Amino acid sequence: MVFARNQWYVAAYGEEVGDGLLARTICGEPIVMYRTGAGEAVALADRCVHRRFPLSESNRDGDRIVCGYHGFTYDPDGTCVAVPGQARVPRTARVPAYRVVEQDSLIWVWIGDGEGDAAAIPRAPWLESPDYTTVRGMEPLAARYELLVDNLLDLSHETYLHAGYIGTPEVAQTPITTETDEEAGVVYVSRRMKDVECPPFYSESTGIEGRIDRWQDIEFHPPGFYLLHSRIAPTGVEPGPDGDDSNAFHVEVGYAIVPETETTTHDFWWVARDFALDDENVSTFLRDSNRTVVLQDVVALNKLEKVIASEPEGYQELSINIDTGGLAARRMLKRLTAR
Amino acid sequence: MVFARNQWYVAAYGEEVGDGLLARTICGEPIVMYRTGAGEAVALADRCVHRRFPLSESNRDGDRIVCGYHGFTYDPDGTCVAVPGQARVPRTARVPAYRVVEQDSLIWVWIGDGEGDAAAIPRAPWLESPDYTTVRGMEPLAARYELLVDNLLDLSHETYLHAGYIGTPEVAQTPITTETDEEAGVVYVSRRMKDVECPPFYSESTGIEGRIDRWQDIEFHPPGFYLLHSRIAPTGVEPGPDGDDSNAFHVEVGYAIVPETETTTHDFWWVARDFALDDENVSTFLRDSNRTVVLQDVVALNKLEKVIASEPEGYQELSINIDTGGLAARRMLKRLTAR
Amino acid sequence: MVFARNQWYVAAYGEEVGDGLLARTICGEPIVMYRTGAGEAVALADRCVHRRFPLSESNRDGDRIVCGYHGFTYDPDGTCVAVPGQARVPRTARVPAYRVVEQDSLIWVWIGDGEGDAAAIPRAPWLESPDYTTVRGMEPLAARYELLVDNLLDLSHETYLHAGYIGTPEVAQTPITTETDEEAGVVYVSRRMKDVECPPFYSESTGIEGRIDRWQDIEFHPPGFYLLHSRIAPTGVEPGPDGDDSNAFHVEVGYAIVPETETTTHDFWWVARDFALDDENVSTFLRDSNRTVVLQDVVALNKLEKVIASEPEGYQELSINIDTGGLAARRMLKRLTAR
Repeated sequence: MVFARNQWYVAAYGEEVGDGLLARTICGEPIVMYRTGAGEAVALADRCVHRRFPLSESNRDGDRIVCGYHGFTYDPDGTCVAVPGQARVPRTARVPAYRVVEQDSLIWVWIGDGEGDAAAIPRAPWLESPDYTTVRGMEPLAARYELLVDNLLDLSHETYLHAGYIGTPEVAQTPITTETDEEAGVVYVSRRMKDVECPPFYSESTGIEGRIDRWQDIEFHPPGFYLLHSRIAPTGVEPGPDGDDSNAFHVEVGYAIVPETETTTHDFWWVARDFALDDENVSTFLRDSNRTVVLQDVVALNKLEKVIASEPEGYQELSINIDTGGLAARRMLKRLTAR
Repeated sequence: MVFARNQWYVAAYGEEVGDGLLARTICGEPIVMYRTGAGEAVALADRCVHRRFPLSESNRDGDRIVCGYHGFTYDPDGTCVAVPGQARVPRTARVPAYRVVEQDSLIWVWIGDGEGDAAAIPRAPWLESPDYTTVRGMEPLAARYELLVDNLLDLSHETYLHAGYIGTPEVAQTPITTETDEEAGVVYVSRRMKDVECPPFYSESTGIEGRIDRWQDIEFHPPGFYLLHSRIAPTGVEPGPDGDDSNAFHVEVGYAIVPETETTTHDFWWVARDFALDDENVSTFLRDSNRTVVLQDVVALNKLEKVIASEPEGYQELSINIDTGGLAARRMLKRLTAR
Repeated sequence: MVFARNQWYVAAYGEEVGDGLLARTICGEPIVMYRTGAGEAVALADRCVHRRFPLSESNRDGDRIVCGYHGFTYDPDGTCVAVPGQARVPRTARVPAYRVVEQDSLIWVWIGDGEGDAAAIPRAPWLESPDYTTVRGMEPLAARYELLVDNLLDLSHETYLHAGYIGTPEVAQTPITTETDEEAGVVYVSRRMKDVECPPFYSESTGIEGRIDRWQDIEFHPPGFYLLHSRIAPTGVEPGPDGDDSNAFHVEVGYAIVPETETTTHDFWWVARDFALDDENVSTFLRDSNRTVVLQDVVALNKLEKVIASEPEGYQELSINIDTGGLAARRMLKRLTAR
């Protein structure tokens, strides 16, 4: 399998990990997650060392997991502490433990060798900020994660695939600027639209009735962390000279694009807003709308995955200006994967 | 994939191609079909040049197709005339267009290089003749097309698989004559039965009550065009010395056996008759009966395909006299495929 | 495919083979079974010699099978005696016939070359003994048969997978003794528990209310015949000096573990008891309970099969004392398969 290893990946939302045993495959590696009595998130290889039974199909005994097949018992660090029929536990009986960092309400795991550098994990402070309200979810995608990276780095598809939600004609018409920071490993794609139609996604949530200025500033951290800083304001409203932009609406859309297998992906998505913080109707509207948008992508990309599976070797695509960001991302992913 | 290329294939019935975007895979090639405002049938490769999105999942704008993912827009000849975010359309932006011939109410496409010779397309004049009434349909077959060629070139199976519809004991008992015209590329198989039982398919449609003379004259044009000239008459009724045969009943059964993939097939079938032209009951009866017969074949051949998928390499069949036509067809198909 | 050939396999229970045509694949070989008018069980290759149509989808004509596709007709010994359209039957027209032995209510077939030695078939006399009452069934397993061999040769899993039915803590805690008779080709695994909890499976069927002595004496005859001689008695009740053990309860559990394909298995199981012979409630209870236990294994092993399919090459298991019997069985199976 060809994944970018020695990388941090989002494995779950913090609230998904609790008393139960959560199974999730990341980059082809089956992982079981749970939370200890002290509240620490644990991630272990999801295979008993004995006969490979999934530990996620097993039972907890306090902070330990007892394999559901023959009772091999594991500590949170993966050490096997008991086996059936004998007192001695073999020295080598241990399942790999993944390093876990819980930050910004996300459970990150290190896929690769060694420990990983927690400081290298990109941040999404809005997810836990009192100044923002967030809705979120995760949809399974039956397509390789690269297709979702392509999709999100070129938002001109909003016009065609997401008309009636976030797409308007101006998205596809407006040129983009792309910038790549090779050293930091970030791709920036920006589209700033002036005096354009306001799509329902933003008119209904913000209450703006007329035309808008609409900024889409993308920040992509390979292999799969995607931030869309979206600014919406009535046309002509500009940030103040002191940087104050409180007359505009800010929506921080984010995705964690996480390979499950070579051809399936975990599509984590969230929408954080700095307005109508306590308005449950706005939360419901944004959750439902964004989930619909995500599922429109899922349907399209699942089709593309089937197309790829049936197409002849050496099929050639044609790329244009809108693809600059996606192609930059592909180059970075290729380097990460080749390592 | 191993298909006979540089051949004409039936891709649709004329009435299937209209305002909508019809997707159909022929010999492994995904095709989208529609009809222009002027009434011309169009067949294009069903993949956008940009990111391979199926054009059949897209929208029409007049005679053009607008890709449902990013809006690449195509003329009926496959030329891309608009792309998002920029005025210039890349010169190479073009999807392959298939040459289409609409004839005898069938949509033929040329699968291969160059243009193809329309004069080489075999005819089925009954389908549009005022002297015939036709019922027809198409069933998807989850089996390689060669199995349907085998099936149709040896009608002795009617006795066992289609008893109660078109099969009687005499079909399997009566020997056949086979003739192969290598130059024209046609296989002829003929079985002429005298003074035999009339199966329900013919007794109910013609009204004949006693025993019959029954002719089955097959004409197979590789790779997949099959005509069965069926003549039914009360026993002893012969064509006149001037060739007049108006005291007999004639049924022109036909099949277009069209590979979808290596292991799936489009099974187009029709039944044209020169009697009871306006009798809707006869039409309904023949449509229902023939569809049932086709589905009996589909069930049997789908099973055989699974058998083939699970059998060891080098499995050997045993052939007898009834297989002479099928074996001749196989030899021709092998030559066409090897080219 | 890698099966142990030149072996006897259970293909069916005697009562499954009758007037109908029973299809079953054994070691990848498709077989059709039926019973002649004289009562003899017949097993033939389930493929017509002509175009490989399954004979099991065909019809009987007395003791013969008439192929449902073109009418090739076979005697119970596999000889083709009639073909359509010609009087002469090709000399080579014959489907392989399997040697069948019906014994202890089981239909055994010889998979391999030559005739096989019927005396080598292991016995299960309880199945037809008037001193025992038997319940039984067969469940399809979507896992390789080796996983079921592993499972049954190490019963410590009862504690974890079958708690509430046959599992108690003492099963996993009690050490086993293992013995291998290389010459006879039998693996023996024995666990004798004294003064232990009585699981519901035995307390409800025998009526014992207190603690028990519980013996599990396994006898495994590769490739797939498994006998579990189970003895349950109130604690302290021993067999008499003359061998009389009529104060104990005896349950003869058995399995025929029969490969269907490389990754699917026929899981035949039975439970024979020497008590409450006519008590229909006990029969129902044991049938339902054991089927539940078998299905718990099926669910677990189907999961393991999927795990194996997705795991990297060269995956390493860790074995401990409880696996001694299973590892001995694997070594024997490896030798049988290598032949």
